[in-house]
Amino acid sequence: MRSWAFAKGHGTENDFVILVDPGDERPVSDDLVRWICDRRAGLGGDGILRAVTGRHVSGWAGDPDVWFMDYRNADGSLAEMCGNGIRVFVRHLIDEGLASGPVVPVGTRAGLRLTEVLPDGRIRVAMGPARVAALDVHVLTADGRAFAAVPVDVGNPHAVSFCADPGQVDLRVAPRWQPADAFPSGVNAEFVAERGPGHLVMRVFERGSGETRSCGTGTVAVAAAWHARHRSAVDPPVRYRVDVPGGTVDVELGDQAYLTGPAVIVAGGELAVPAELEMAASVG
Amino acid sequence: MRSWAFAKGHGTENDFVILVDPGDERPVSDDLVRWICDRRAGLGGDGILRAVTGRHVSGWAGDPDVWFMDYRNADGSLAEMCGNGIRVFVRHLIDEGLASGPVVPVGTRAGLRLTEVLPDGRIRVAMGPARVAALDVHVLTADGRAFAAVPVDVGNPHAVSFCADPGQVDLRVAPRWQPADAFPSGVNAEFVAERGPGHLVMRVFERGSGETRSCGTGTVAVAAAWHARHRSAVDPPVRYRVDVPGGTVDVELGDQAYLTGPAVIVAGGELAVPAELEMAASVG
Repeated sequence: MRSWAFAKGHGTENDFVILVDPGDERPVSDDLVRWICDRRAGLGGDGILRAVTGRHVSGWAGDPDVWFMDYRNADGSLAEMCGNGIRVFVRHLIDEGLASGPVVPVGTRAGLRLTEVLPDGRIRVAMGPARVAALDVHVLTADGRAFAAVPVDVGNPHAVSFCADPGQVDLRVAPRWQPADAFPSGVNAEFVAERGPGHLVMRVFERGSGETRSCGTGTVAVAAAWHARHRSAVDPPVRYRVDVPGGTVDVELGDQAYLTGPAVIVAGGELAVPAELEMAASVG
Repeated sequence: MRSWAFAKGHGTENDFVILVDPGDERPVSDDLVRWICDRRAGLGGDGILRAVTGRHVSGWAGDPDVWFMDYRNADGSLAEMCGNGIRVFVRHLIDEGLASGPVVPVGTRAGLRLTEVLPDGRIRVAMGPARVAALDVHVLTADGRAFAAVPVDVGNPHAVSFCADPGQVDLRVAPRWQPADAFPSGVNAEFVAERGPGHLVMRVFERGSGETRSCGTGTVAVAAAWHARHRSAVDPPVRYRVDVPGGTVDVELGDQAYLTGPAVIVAGGELAVPAELEMAASVG
């Protein structure tokens, strides 16, 4: 058994375990990721954010000294980018003196992302463009309700449904959609209402996860869809406040989208990794 | 913000955050408990095990030097005793050199409990007597199935239903019971089948929690009910192996019951307690 240093934190209650490994000396196996993220047998988290320097990432052609966010979902699979995770990642680098702000570039599998630590402690992340489709699709929830939904591409696929009260939408079972071939890789389904001018409230069903407390790209998709369908006469840049079950973020829309929100570190220490997982990792 | 040392561990996937506070210098408020046990905004756990010496526990008339397990449920409420939690509690005391085995007495709100660390690392806990009622009641699950259930008192109330396959029982909603006044404080409902001689498999719906991965007193109740109804010709002491979704324990029945099972520490470190919760705790 070997001890692995860790931190745990969350962004609007999307929670992560952070492992710092500048020289990529401790690659993580799928089994190790699943054990760490297991909320009862392990520490618990929606995913793992591993901090590696760019020079050790195969396929990274950018700055070799940049911190690269090796993001893994709780099931061990790779993910390109996470709008909530990257804030927690940057918060930890700053707290540990591993990066100096206010601007912190971060390498991701979706490319370089610029982040900025604001004076109030929140972190602003360049999310790339949000592309809103011209034609709606239909989203069907388990209780038989149908919604006209706006497809939005924020690097990953979203279907944004407008409704009177997101709190009343049945998200116990994955929503379906029509036409059936609209989202061949699945879709994250958001349900949104307006609370006031420039102020939206949403819930989200994430593909592969179920309802979650927050989804960073989902908040951007919701703002972009709302703007395209309800306020398209107002030219960007525009700003929306978006409430999710786990907190509140701000979204700015323009040539690219910016997501601003909190990042909280709740604990740090040492993981007691079981020997069989450690061995799996060292050969992985 | 102040750092609080913690450990996290589990017994058959019933998981706990352990805080060691010999002098009772850091009482925990309900809000602090809820924050620590929050699986996304905090660290996450089914409850908190706070280690205080007996002399600092009001109402404790026993050995002032004994370690007292101040057990709190995730919602902040007090609990008397937890058969899985006490093993994790003792494992941590041993690991940290705060107790020497193999026998470790532990004060609880249910009285003194003797524990023993076995050579294989498992921990054996004296659970007190299990009292099996003479008359069955009826337990009704959400999908309309009815079971004859054996009421068992293990310090807390249980209703044990025999069935062909616990995996097929619908535990998404709390079971009900008849007569309605059988369990005025609610009941923990177990569903059990035999896998082989002296080998049982169960699932459990815990009052106030829903289905859980394990319930220590529930495993004792299941063994006692099975023995009383199916093998009462065999005099105690007798031993049962009981499989739960989170692992396996052994139960010995006699003048009192003994529960033996694993205890695993998965992480340790420092909690970054938010200032507003720290203040609430210091006046609590």
